[in-house]
Amino acid sequence: MAVSDPIPTARASNPAIDDARLLMRGTARLLLDLGITAIAEFTLPCGRRADLAGLGPKGEMVIVEVKSGVQDFRTDEKWPDYFAWCDRFYFAVSDRFPADMLPEQTGLIIADGFGGAVVRESPIAKLAPARRKALTLKFARNAAERALRAI
Amino acid sequence: MAVSDPIPTARASNPAIDDARLLMRGTARLLLDLGITAIAEFTLPCGRRADLAGLGPKGEMVIVEVKSGVQDFRTDEKWPDYFAWCDRFYFAVSDRFPADMLPEQTGLIIADGFGGAVVRESPIAKLAPARRKALTLKFARNAAERALRAI
Repeated sequence: MAVSDPIPTARASNPAIDDARLLMRGTARLLLDLGITAIAEFTLPCGRRADLAGLGPKGEMVIVEVKSGVQDFRTDEKWPDYFAWCDRFYFAVSDRFPADMLPEQTGLIIADGFGGAVVRESPIAKLAPARRKALTLKFARNAAERALRAI
Repeated sequence: MAVSDPIPTARASNPAIDDARLLMRGTARLLLDLGITAIAEFTLPCGRRADLAGLGPKGEMVIVEVKSGVQDFRTDEKWPDYFAWCDRFYFAVSDRFPADMLPEQTGLIIADGFGGAVVRESPIAKLAPARRKALTLKFARNAAERALRAI
């Protein structure tokens, strides 16, 4: 669907747009509860920026794309690109989002500003070792640069 | 030398103790200039905490131990433990520190609060792949936890 298409029904059922920043925070907290340490806006080697990228205790790479509303989802034609850069991929939306429209082969997180829940688990598609290694290093250096500001 | 031994000469030539926090900051900046992204106070799998641990662009793990004065160095009998957890190891001290007393098989950084210089390169002792992988992951998750606070 082209970006310019009107989506009257979807917009009527979602009069307000969710605050993506709050959803991101709630989702990051949820991930942390699940043992996955995430950072926001992680630039992938392909140039695309993941809303949240996280590492689990065994090195599992998780990417979460936060959608503030239907329009935000519909105008994003490139989300399948994320599959190449993680073991698990989730969309995170608020409970006002019509979750049925999200693709079933993705994980689903319902979040608010304080936390969230995994409503549908993501299928697991394991990264190749060399890519995992490169991604983990990039993640580590990126996260450390941010942490460095606190020194 | 036992911890309780007086070190009059060394102390006389170092009447003041350097601010380790400032040295750490200057050293972290130097490392960043060298392409090594470091975090402060990184707890190693052995339980010991490295003053600075950094990752280079190819995944090189660097550890820097900051010494605020002679006494600080003399009372630390366990610095050789760090060799097991990095490819390169440096001491970082101010230009007031009598650098001759630092072991030659370690790298040497002279720093102040704003930057520093590598005065002697560290020998390279490459980590085994499995250990590097585990350390990098630990570093990544640790750094991300700190970065997370900014979300």
